[in-house]
Amino acid sequence: MSKAAQSHDQGSSVGKVDGRFFTFAEPSDTMPLESGARLGPITLAYETYGELAANQDNAVLVLHALSGDAHAAGIHRSDDPKPGWWDTLIGPGKGIDTSRYFVICSNVLGGCMGSTGPSSINPATNRPYGLDFPMITIGDMVAAQKRLIDALGIPRLLAVIGGSMGGMQVLDWSVRYPEMVFAAIPLATTMRHSALAIAFNEVARQAIMADPHWQKGCYYDGKHPDLGLAVARMIGHITYLSDDALRNRFGRKLQDRNDFSCNFGADFQVESYLRHQGKKFVDRFDANSFLYLTRAADYFDLLLDESEEHVATVFAKALARFLVVSFTSDWLYPTYQSRAMVTAMKRAGRDVSFCEIEAPCGHDAFLLPIKRLATIIKGFLDRVHTEFRK
Amino acid sequence: MSKAAQSHDQGSSVGKVDGRFFTFAEPSDTMPLESGARLGPITLAYETYGELAANQDNAVLVLHALSGDAHAAGIHRSDDPKPGWWDTLIGPGKGIDTSRYFVICSNVLGGCMGSTGPSSINPATNRPYGLDFPMITIGDMVAAQKRLIDALGIPRLLAVIGGSMGGMQVLDWSVRYPEMVFAAIPLATTMRHSALAIAFNEVARQAIMADPHWQKGCYYDGKHPDLGLAVARMIGHITYLSDDALRNRFGRKLQDRNDFSCNFGADFQVESYLRHQGKKFVDRFDANSFLYLTRAADYFDLLLDESEEHVATVFAKALARFLVVSFTSDWLYPTYQSRAMVTAMKRAGRDVSFCEIEAPCGHDAFLLPIKRLATIIKGFLDRVHTEFRK
Repeated sequence: MSKAAQSHDQGSSVGKVDGRFFTFAEPSDTMPLESGARLGPITLAYETYGELAANQDNAVLVLHALSGDAHAAGIHRSDDPKPGWWDTLIGPGKGIDTSRYFVICSNVLGGCMGSTGPSSINPATNRPYGLDFPMITIGDMVAAQKRLIDALGIPRLLAVIGGSMGGMQVLDWSVRYPEMVFAAIPLATTMRHSALAIAFNEVARQAIMADPHWQKGCYYDGKHPDLGLAVARMIGHITYLSDDALRNRFGRKLQDRNDFSCNFGADFQVESYLRHQGKKFVDRFDANSFLYLTRAADYFDLLLDESEEHVATVFAKALARFLVVSFTSDWLYPTYQSRAMVTAMKRAGRDVSFCEIEAPCGHDAFLLPIKRLATIIKGFLDRVHTEFRK
Repeated sequence: MSKAAQSHDQGSSVGKVDGRFFTFAEPSDTMPLESGARLGPITLAYETYGELAANQDNAVLVLHALSGDAHAAGIHRSDDPKPGWWDTLIGPGKGIDTSRYFVICSNVLGGCMGSTGPSSINPATNRPYGLDFPMITIGDMVAAQKRLIDALGIPRLLAVIGGSMGGMQVLDWSVRYPEMVFAAIPLATTMRHSALAIAFNEVARQAIMADPHWQKGCYYDGKHPDLGLAVARMIGHITYLSDDALRNRFGRKLQDRNDFSCNFGADFQVESYLRHQGKKFVDRFDANSFLYLTRAADYFDLLLDESEEHVATVFAKALARFLVVSFTSDWLYPTYQSRAMVTAMKRAGRDVSFCEIEAPCGHDAFLLPIKRLATIIKGFLDRVHTEFRK
């Protein structure tokens, strides 16, 4: 999956931008990771939409969730006819208006959609990394993105925006590179995973590692752990929806039959839907990337300590104006977790807007065409763009 | 696992009760199942506590959930030192007072704790049934229990009580054999699985069936699908708890370490807990039974149709007084599903008490020592016992 990335693993020590891949951290200048390990070379796949203003005041960095990629909007390439994963929000006249803003989206470090990850070639062995890939963190993803933004010649981003694991990157950006973030929009996210979120990720990882084809991560030459990865995706998929969403969409409707099969085929439409989601996922995603990215999300902890005194320090370094958005039926990162975030931002004296959107569709709401979401993002970007130019 | 059951597969055509196993439906008189198939012989493992009154007015049938067994209370056998799964509720002076009531609990049909199920010997082949075991329903479980109650010489049960899948059996008893049920106590249960509950069961089944040792159910001579069954149990276990329960018990606490391992071992205590639950389960449970029982729960549908006119007909045949109990943090069978049940009972003119108990521990609350639960069950049994004797 990272063949494209591999073919771009050349360039200067300051990095090479070619309009679709950015390669940096050559062997002579590997990137230090939060774990203490070093990694290089690193390639990030990215896409851009719109034009960067001459005074560079209109750059918006979009950060994707677990299974996302750099292809956030439009039909960008002739070899990929699918619109981007956030095409409902990004485009001319849309919530993030590409006739006004220059939008950048890059596939995360550790991913498998063109950026360097465990399926990439390890230059030390000339074989895919597998579990030799170092553990990466949300902070490492952000540090890599920062190199891309530097290489694109953007001194300060108008805004960083993302949902779920993308929202964690937004929060990390706001405190890691405060002077580079004028505004930050974390959606449907959290400062730290709850035990429930860790539990679901852990069971999903166990499903992958229980697949005999996983082979401790060394499966690239043979069969891949497709069945395990499909089960992992099915678990994830349930957590992205909601009781209401599943009831409204599927209820107890049967598949192609008026009665039960009395075997273990897919009788209910919801079963068939989940099996389909699982199968589709294995065609485009790498099982080891799933392990690394869920682990990075579980390790992420901006709060560290829930004491009153500590809360005020979390966003003490941040300079951004924040727009925090949660969704009523999101039970993976429920609204109380967004409220805790808002409290911490306010304690640090930050400028924060908070909106809980009534939506029955669960965690995935941030990816869906919700008019109110587009409206408040558009309004917030208009405001901060005006402030930025002053 | 069903060796004990197999050794008791002899007896007369009306069934044989020996104080621990009840065998009936000999080949000459197999039991018809709801699917149209016939099954026999059938053995139910059961235990009893207390003494049946001379006038038989004090019999309480306890119905267990997915992974339960006949051993509901006390330390009943010298070869099994564990107290029963509902020992906190059943015993002298407890919520279900065995100094007053005669309590019966049997392992369900399709199970693997002494009752006939897919791991039992198929008399047609002299090998374990595996997937040749017919699909069974909640109604089939109840029909088998009815034969046991008949064989014990009990014309009418004072009460039937159970939680989760046990609660489904309670509801089924109340409409299938209305004249035999004086009172019914469904706890933490539902008239029909939501799409969310089906979704979790389906993913758990997929985890089992993805295990190459599953072998389409023919694994009894070789390795069992332990890894798949462990993942299935872990999925189930998350749904039995709650966000609050997991946060209070585990939060983000680490296991044996002050820092992250940066590998895929169990770093967080919640991960270690789930892995332990998964491992423990495979030692005592049969993967095929898990498939059959979850399928029976998914198929169960007392409501069939949510139209206003239909709701009144659901409990039209029932004669029981009902006590319905739900728990605030149960998101597998949330309170709204118990309220729908209460509405249907009231439309049918039934005598219904309903209690939603404030409990942070999720669906599993019905198994925990909650004083209020014991108190209301005790009070309700006292009342119906008095009414029964009139």
